[in-house]
Parts: sequence; structure tokens; C-alpha cells
Amino acid sequence: MKKYKIAVIPGDGVGVEVINEGLKILNTIKEIHGGIDFEFKTFPWSCEYYLKTGKMMPKDGIKILSDFEAIYLGAVGFPGVPDHISLWGLLLPIRKEFDQYVNLRPVKLLKGIKGPLRTEKIDFVVVRENVEGEYSGTGGRLYQGTENEVAIQTAVFTRKGTERVMRYAFELAMKRNKNLISTTKSNALNYGMVFWDDIFNNLKNDYPEVETRTMHVDALSGYFLLHPENIDVVVASNLFGDILTDLGSAMQGSIGIAPGANINPEKKYPSMFEPVHGSAPDVAGKGIANPIGAIWTASMMLDHLGETDSAKLIMKALEKVTEEGIYLTKDVGGNSKTHEVGDAVNNKIKELA
Amino acid sequence: MKKYKIAVIPGDGVGVEVINEGLKILNTIKEIHGGIDFEFKTFPWSCEYYLKTGKMMPKDGIKILSDFEAIYLGAVGFPGVPDHISLWGLLLPIRKEFDQYVNLRPVKLLKGIKGPLRTEKIDFVVVRENVEGEYSGTGGRLYQGTENEVAIQTAVFTRKGTERVMRYAFELAMKRNKNLISTTKSNALNYGMVFWDDIFNNLKNDYPEVETRTMHVDALSGYFLLHPENIDVVVASNLFGDILTDLGSAMQGSIGIAPGANINPEKKYPSMFEPVHGSAPDVAGKGIANPIGAIWTASMMLDHLGETDSAKLIMKALEKVTEEGIYLTKDVGGNSKTHEVGDAVNNKIKELA
Ligand SMILES: CC(C)[C@H](C(=O)O)[C@@H](O)C(=O)O
Ligand SMILES: CC(C)[C@H](C(=O)O)[C@@H](O)C(=O)O
Repeated sequence: MKKYKIAVIPGDGVGVEVINEGLKILNTIKEIHGGIDFEFKTFPWSCEYYLKTGKMMPKDGIKILSDFEAIYLGAVGFPGVPDHISLWGLLLPIRKEFDQYVNLRPVKLLKGIKGPLRTEKIDFVVVRENVEGEYSGTGGRLYQGTENEVAIQTAVFTRKGTERVMRYAFELAMKRNKNLISTTKSNALNYGMVFWDDIFNNLKNDYPEVETRTMHVDALSGYFLLHPENIDVVVASNLFGDILTDLGSAMQGSIGIAPGANINPEKKYPSMFEPVHGSAPDVAGKGIANPIGAIWTASMMLDHLGETDSAKLIMKALEKVTEEGIYLTKDVGGNSKTHEVGDAVNNKIKELA
Repeated sequence: MKKYKIAVIPGDGVGVEVINEGLKILNTIKEIHGGIDFEFKTFPWSCEYYLKTGKMMPKDGIKILSDFEAIYLGAVGFPGVPDHISLWGLLLPIRKEFDQYVNLRPVKLLKGIKGPLRTEKIDFVVVRENVEGEYSGTGGRLYQGTENEVAIQTAVFTRKGTERVMRYAFELAMKRNKNLISTTKSNALNYGMVFWDDIFNNLKNDYPEVETRTMHVDALSGYFLLHPENIDVVVASNLFGDILTDLGSAMQGSIGIAPGANINPEKKYPSMFEPVHGSAPDVAGKGIANPIGAIWTASMMLDHLGETDSAKLIMKALEKVTEEGIYLTKDVGGNSKTHEVGDAVNNKIKELA
């Protein structure tokens, strides 16, 4: 019996609601499989926790989490707690401290889902740098509050940090259609992105089989809409990857669908699995949040843990449910409740197993 | 007889081809109007010029241009001349030296054009900060070429620079549907964008009639696809505006359609009018570039010069031509040549005048 220790941080708003569905499915997987077990431990760390304790997580939060093999996170954020507090107190430190330098975000239109684009040929992956770059948190404000105030925000790129995420993307491209786009903006960001291009141009000699392109982030955003069928793997800096993957999630019909994994490829530290969407305060509490992103994310977690067959089973069931189109939440044109969609996927898994 | 002095910089690639069509139309406007004249002076400044002279423009280029009321520019960029050279040698200095701090980019789906989105309700404007922020050109590289190399890129935001572009956006919103979205990323860019939000939150008290929202650039990118009908005016930093407007141009069916104006609202310096698209080396020389962006841009130039009726006439003719759908270039599903589309608009102007 293989046992996986998983830390569960439902977080705020719809995070709590969708993680419930993900857990339901993981428990079913466990039953069906017979040879694996999950030890879930739930942590209430969130904005609510912050409002009570003044902290997003306890001081030794990172240490506590380091005991687990994976972290399954819903979403963090709450009106009244400024984002730059809630996120720098929980999400971003976890990504950084556990060196989860790859943020993997598949962009794929599921069968039966009607996206905003006319085309349906959407199936690519964005590999986002996840611990440095524009998210270095470096900067300051001078003459604060006066009319002469100046604020600076500094992006820091390291060769090591850039190379390793690009290598990951090249390896992934080798396993897919051997086509990789590097996202740049070297025409304007004359140090950071020129550096990024230099590294990419060097590295590509190590992967002669991979066809590469370098595209400016602005042009690439447009390309996402006009030629998604020509995209296989995209590698991007932290900020560019952030923007491109939200764009990608919208292309999938709803941000509630898109999954995400924050990975430490060496498995030296736990990786964290969180859907792309946020806590969605406007939707929270109504039981209508889309659990697909969280369920898909659970599948990515199993894949990372090495449980590939179970991961595939979830995806097969998920896409059968969307294809049938009976159980869909409001954001994708249906009127099912969150738990109804979760149940439908759950039943489908049992059916297919 | 009112006379406008206009500096023409066709630039590289398709820039040259589309500017030709714009000039054709401006000449027709002059004839029809009877009371205005244009004094065009063409400058060959471009990457080709750089390859000959080692400079994108002469040393006193800015001084030369300061004699004009407007600059009409095609596109700059050429394989073999790194973008960060071609642009920092021409386009960006013009924007900065002439304090063209507003980059105005309408995003509107023209009648008869089939965009990549299912929806056709696309009609908004992006006001992009155009001289500072992420494009400050500040940064450096340490331990260059070694495995310890670090590159930094610093965005610099000033209160004055941020306030004035936001005010412009508020004023524009007042003239439109009184709805303004501020683009942020304060959850990650913990100095620059927190500052941006502070200023926006202050300023909105001065415009109580304008309904405002603050959205993270990632979420907003998705919103562009899912709810463009709910967007009226967007204000964004230099980089975010760059990305959002290329996205917007794709939503218009082709990047060849989108117009742009780099404006010094006080008219202390010349403003520059350039379509959003680049020099498109892959398309250049074939006579198939889409001139709509350049023609629409010419209309924006006339509007800026105070020739509102003529500006409107161009737009009316342009949209009639796209609606009829006979003369369209390849990028928007037709097979007309660049000059055929230009001629069609030209004839339509004469017809409508
Ligand atoms: C919440 C925010 C800090 C985060 C990010 O920008 O990384 C989110 O948008 C994401 O993409 O996971
Ligand atoms: C060419 C490039 C420097 C420029 C920019 O990023 O501003 C272009 O993309 C634009 O949008 O005008």
C-alpha cells in the first residue's frame, strides 16, 4: 500500500467549495485503485485566518508543509485583505520556499465546452517560470505621498533560474510535438528580456529536434487568439506566463476550468497544485463554482506523484461529463451546482474504472 | 487655407506599403475639403537606414521632427537589426522626447470583419501610458556570460506620469460610457502596481460620475475574451497596455487593422500616429499587407489635428468597404492587394463626400 501525504489548503471563497469536489474524487480513486492511500491534512490558512490571527499562515507554516508530498490548494483572496498581503503571506512564499520553479498550465478546450473563440483546436501547455523574474518583490517608493513620488519595481532574472525552466520546457516539448515558443519582450525590456533571449538561443543548441520560435508577449497574446492550433509548448517568465495562462483559461471557456501545478521537478520539496482561478468572492457561497479546474488539478497532482493511470482516468471521466453536457455550471452555460458536477465526474470514474 | 506639416516615416517592411495608402487618402481628403493642406515631408529613417549609417535616425532627428505638427509612422523592425536597437533608436525616443504620454488604441470590430471571437460586441478604447513604467530602460547585467549571471530590469513609475495618463482616461470615459477599468497587478508587483492603485483610488474621487473597476492584468486579459461588451475604457501601464492592445488587435480580426496614436495631449510637441502592427518581414514586399490600420490611424491623426469631420468621413468610408466585403486583404479572408483596398476606401470617400 503506497501512501501519499497531502496537505490541503482550501483557502478562501470558492476555493473551499471546489477543493471539496477534488477530494471526493481523490477518495474514489483510492477506493478503486486499492493499492494507494492518501493521508489528507487540512489547514485553515486563508484570509479569514489572517483576519483572526494577523498572519496568513503560522510562522512555521513552511516547515509544517515540508512534511508533505504535495499541497492541494483552492484559492486565496478576500475583499478587505489587500491581495499583496494575502498572497505574499501564503501563495508566493510556498512557491518560492519550495523552489516550485515550474508552473505548468495546460490550455485545452474540453469536449462539449463552447469557448469564446470560433476555433476548437486548442491544446497546448504553458510552462511558466514561478519563483523569480518580475515576482522578485524588489522595489520601493521614494517621496511617498508627495507629488514627486516615484515607485520602482525590479524584475530579477538569474541564469540558473532561467535555464532550468527553459530546459523543463524543452524536455516537455520533446515529449509532445517538439515545438517550443519562447515569450520575450526584448524590444522594450532591454536588459531582462535580452538576457532571456540570450539564454534561450544558447539552450536551443542542446535540443536540435525541437523547432523553436521567439515571440514578443504582445504578439503572442494575439497569436493565442488567431493561431492556437500552431502552439504546442510555450515558455514564459513569471509575469508573462501569468497573463498568458489567464488568457488561456478564458480560451477554455471559463477560468473555472483551467488547472495548474507549481512543481519542484527534482521532488526535493513538495509541489503545489492549484487551479488557475481565484477565490471569486462574487460567486462564493452560492454553490455554483465550477469544480472542473480543481478536479483537473487533482489529476495533475496524481500524475506528479507517479499515479499516471489514475490521473488519466480522472481526465477521461471529466471530459466524458463535459461532452455529455448534462452537468455543467453556470459559467459554461449549464445550471448544475458545484457538487452535482463533482458527483457526475465521480460516478463517471466509477463507471469507467 | 489651414496647412498641417506632417513628417512621414514609412520605416521598414509593410510600413512603407501601408503608409502609401494612408497618404493617398489624406490627399483625397485635402482635395475634397478644399480648405486644408498637408505639407508632407518623408524621412527614410529605418533599419535599412541604420544598416547604411549606423543610426536609426540622424543625431538631430528629434530636433528636425519638432518642426512638425504630427508624425505619421509605418513600422520599424528588420531581421538582422535587433529590435532593442531599432526601437530604442527611433520609436521609443520619439515617444519619450515628445512626451507622447498617451498611447490611444481603439479596439473595435469593423462591420463585415469576422474576428476570432464568437461575439461581435467589441468597441472599447485602451489608454496606454507611453513614456515610463516598464519601458524606462533601466537595468543591467551582472557576472555577464557566467553561470552566476543576474539581469535586472526596473520599472519606474512617477506620480505625475501616472496621474496624467489616468486623468486622460477619466476624461475620455466621461465622453464615452463613463466606465473605466484600471489595469493592475498589485498582488504580485508589490511596489509599482500598489502605487498605481493608490493613485487611481485617489483620482476617482475627482470623477464621481465614472464607474470604475480595478482588474489584474491576467484576469483582464481573460475578460477581454469573455466579456468585451462590458468594456468601455481601459487605462494601463506601458507594458500592460502593450499586451492588451495586441490582444485587442487580434480581437479585431487582424493585427493589420488596429490603429494607434501616441499623443502629447497638451500639443506642446508633435504627436505620432502609427498602426499597432509591426513591419511584418514575412509579409513585406508582396503587396498584400492590410492598409486598414494605417488608414484608420490617419483618421486618428486628423481627429487630433481638429479635423473631426474629415476623420469621421474616413471611418465611414472604411467601414463601408469592410461591410461590403469585396476589397479585403488575405489576413481578413479576402484576396485583394494592399493598393486595391486603399483605392476602394479612397473611392468610397469620394462617393460619400
Ligand atoms: C494570485 C496571484 C499572485 C497569482 C499570480 O499572479 O501568480 C495568480 O494570478 C496565479 O496566476 O496563480
Ligand atoms: C515595437 C515595440 C517596442 C512597441 C511597444 O512595445 O511599444 C510595439 O509593440 C507597440 O505596441 O507599439
